[in-house]
Amino acid sequence: MRLPIYLLLVISILLLCSSCQNVSQGNTSQEDRPPNVIVIFMDDMGFGDLSSFGHPTIQTPEIDRIAQEGQKWTNFYTASSVCTPSRGALLTGRYPIRIGLGPTQSNKRVFFPNSLGGLPSSEITIAEMLKEQGYKTGIVGKWHLGHQPEHLPTTQGFDSYYGIPYSNDMDPVGGWKLESFFMKPDHNKWNVPLMQDEEIIERPANQHTITKRYTEKALEFIEENKADPFFLYFPHSMVHTPIFAHKDFVGKSPRGLYGDVMAEIDWSVGQVIGKLEDLNLDKNTLVVFTSDNGPWLVMRETGGSAGLLADGKGTTWEGGMRVPGIFYMPGTVQSGTITDIGSTLDLLPTIASMTGATVPEDRTIDGYDLSDVLKNKSSSPRDHMIYYRNQDVYAVRKGEYKAHYITETCYALDTGREELEEPLLYNLNVDPSEKYNHASDHPDVLSDLATLVAEHKISVKSVPNELNKY
Amino acid sequence: MRLPIYLLLVISILLLCSSCQNVSQGNTSQEDRPPNVIVIFMDDMGFGDLSSFGHPTIQTPEIDRIAQEGQKWTNFYTASSVCTPSRGALLTGRYPIRIGLGPTQSNKRVFFPNSLGGLPSSEITIAEMLKEQGYKTGIVGKWHLGHQPEHLPTTQGFDSYYGIPYSNDMDPVGGWKLESFFMKPDHNKWNVPLMQDEEIIERPANQHTITKRYTEKALEFIEENKADPFFLYFPHSMVHTPIFAHKDFVGKSPRGLYGDVMAEIDWSVGQVIGKLEDLNLDKNTLVVFTSDNGPWLVMRETGGSAGLLADGKGTTWEGGMRVPGIFYMPGTVQSGTITDIGSTLDLLPTIASMTGATVPEDRTIDGYDLSDVLKNKSSSPRDHMIYYRNQDVYAVRKGEYKAHYITETCYALDTGREELEEPLLYNLNVDPSEKYNHASDHPDVLSDLATLVAEHKISVKSVPNELNKY
Repeated sequence: MRLPIYLLLVISILLLCSSCQNVSQGNTSQEDRPPNVIVIFMDDMGFGDLSSFGHPTIQTPEIDRIAQEGQKWTNFYTASSVCTPSRGALLTGRYPIRIGLGPTQSNKRVFFPNSLGGLPSSEITIAEMLKEQGYKTGIVGKWHLGHQPEHLPTTQGFDSYYGIPYSNDMDPVGGWKLESFFMKPDHNKWNVPLMQDEEIIERPANQHTITKRYTEKALEFIEENKADPFFLYFPHSMVHTPIFAHKDFVGKSPRGLYGDVMAEIDWSVGQVIGKLEDLNLDKNTLVVFTSDNGPWLVMRETGGSAGLLADGKGTTWEGGMRVPGIFYMPGTVQSGTITDIGSTLDLLPTIASMTGATVPEDRTIDGYDLSDVLKNKSSSPRDHMIYYRNQDVYAVRKGEYKAHYITETCYALDTGREELEEPLLYNLNVDPSEKYNHASDHPDVLSDLATLVAEHKISVKSVPNELNKY
Repeated sequence: MRLPIYLLLVISILLLCSSCQNVSQGNTSQEDRPPNVIVIFMDDMGFGDLSSFGHPTIQTPEIDRIAQEGQKWTNFYTASSVCTPSRGALLTGRYPIRIGLGPTQSNKRVFFPNSLGGLPSSEITIAEMLKEQGYKTGIVGKWHLGHQPEHLPTTQGFDSYYGIPYSNDMDPVGGWKLESFFMKPDHNKWNVPLMQDEEIIERPANQHTITKRYTEKALEFIEENKADPFFLYFPHSMVHTPIFAHKDFVGKSPRGLYGDVMAEIDWSVGQVIGKLEDLNLDKNTLVVFTSDNGPWLVMRETGGSAGLLADGKGTTWEGGMRVPGIFYMPGTVQSGTITDIGSTLDLLPTIASMTGATVPEDRTIDGYDLSDVLKNKSSSPRDHMIYYRNQDVYAVRKGEYKAHYITETCYALDTGREELEEPLLYNLNVDPSEKYNHASDHPDVLSDLATLVAEHKISVKSVPNELNKY
């Protein structure tokens, strides 16, 4: 059966008008208010631990889908290669050294259970910034910015908190032993507390079910706040060792338990996106997915992979600080791969720009507003990145070139710090694995990078070190 | 404006019927004949050199699209880590040692301009197999299975040939010098012939335009043979060093010239797929995209990347022999990532199965029919892979475990062959980078793998060595 062409045309136009109307009705309801923001933050997940970033046996179809339909950033950096300073930098848009989180002792790079310090209350977090705009704010997951009462998330702009206050390998029963991470997972071996707002509600936290429970809490938060603009900060405690997967996921991945955990995280991301779609909020919610630092390579098969990048967590080689960066907001974030430089430091100003919030003006903000890259795929306003470790600038990148001044490896527990007599220089766009030193070919580039570091250092004022308080 | 529901329903049904009819008409015309087959074969492209396999600055959107819509195999192997034996194995479905391409001298691992040998005429290639089915057959690109008149592609089942007979770095003017590969590309430095069927038509081949010209020839072949089932074997001479990109692509990629070349290859793949779509042949053409071996790491920034895999070309570490494997045939190949084991050895029986051709029955075929994996995502019938170098079994994989008996590195030109006193054992699904030796934990696995090798060796009969003839 065939319809005459003129009839088909008329019918098509009628149908088109009818469906246009439906779409615009849907959009209008979402656009009446500023966008929601969800930041999903992985713990110790490496650059190479997603299928869309090249892992051969880890499967992450839900995350891959938002990377494909949103923006996949492949030169995206955290501001530190370890937990605490990385998280502080994300929430404030400032290098850790400015916010009291640049450690002076190599054994106090993060907060430990006996720590007394925290992210100073004078710092302004994304949550505090958005609360000024009337946002509902919540954190589900690992905090690690101080666990004394005056440092908990509810003192830093979050209406609610559900999660663990520091790393899931702390408070080990019988002392910290590397071997314990390679055994059959048992959450009783780590006496980590689970908190609701300011109260400990479970200890040790049952980590076997923690990703599932975080996800339920995240969905509850979205559901409860669907009528208001909201900010959900969702820092998973996985895949930091000791790793745990819910029994529904154990044995699912050829990658072993690490792959099972990633499969559960992927499920969790799918749940969040699905919830947004169910509530017709997906087109008005900016979802960011990234990680706090590279893989913890000393954990062998129970740790992750930096893919083709060198080294991992705790170092200023690319594997330590370059992580997957994914931005997703259908209809607003233009789909594509971005090879320009971005950083978790940029989340605060980018979110400010997209929500109409005000970036704090009384202090140095190290982040750049990436919203024009998200919306229009313009060039990134960030052209450089400074790689700190502790109080020191170990390395710096500008454009395609990165210079190392101090190197360290955390591949072994012996960290092997080395102050270089001559800097190393790599072209990261051409040589992302940092194999081929071109220092002698480009003295001009080295000089330019040294100037950048010198100017940056002038901007850094001494502040009390929070990591020394214990 | 809104239409009454009943009217919308009627209209939708009418439109649906009308479009169904069109679709089924389209399919019928494609399904009247056995499927065409196109094998696009890269030269020295590593596991990590596609954006969909994790490279941060190489962009290959066209290849990524067929990987996404087709099947992306992440445990896919060539049968050799160097050109000649890898190509022989692909075309015959037999390990190189069975077809006279297991070298006995380490400096004669491939054919050189002074070689007299070739793939024996007694071997049956995919082209010969498909000619029996009435296929038109063509090769565009690099042959490297013998360049004496009796060894050219037209003697091995191909109706037509356009390309270079051996590697694009052979016949170097003034001798082979590593430094020459790092200089500004000049095709006059390599006196490589370009052939049409049995004639040399250009010497030195202008390699700046070679990918473009190959692509034009490939499209011509498809156009000329659109009325018949056809087999196009399309082995690019890129990204084997010396690398050349057409001026339209030079400077396009942040990865430098290597990325420019990959961008041109990606364009070429897009052209081939576009041509199939234009001719309404896309749903009836199996497209395979893979590489002959891992990246040539001695070429530094002008060579490729094996991603998270160890080492590269010329070795039996994963980086030498595991390559991207992509199968695409909309409507037939089920979309997904396959983490099971596959090999270029499997192309002959798989293509036979999909075209109704007959696999040679008078000889050992080492390939497995993967067609059920392609069509139904069933488990791969291949559960193991033997890693040859020269005449020796260096390593073997069965399931997730791989044992190394002899190792060699080609990272440096000094290859460093080492016969191991105790085998190394890696779990490749969990530890694809081959970092954590578990030999002492699994004597049973080692014993099982040793049995597999011993049984395999019994099946190998001595044949004249073609690589020794020069």
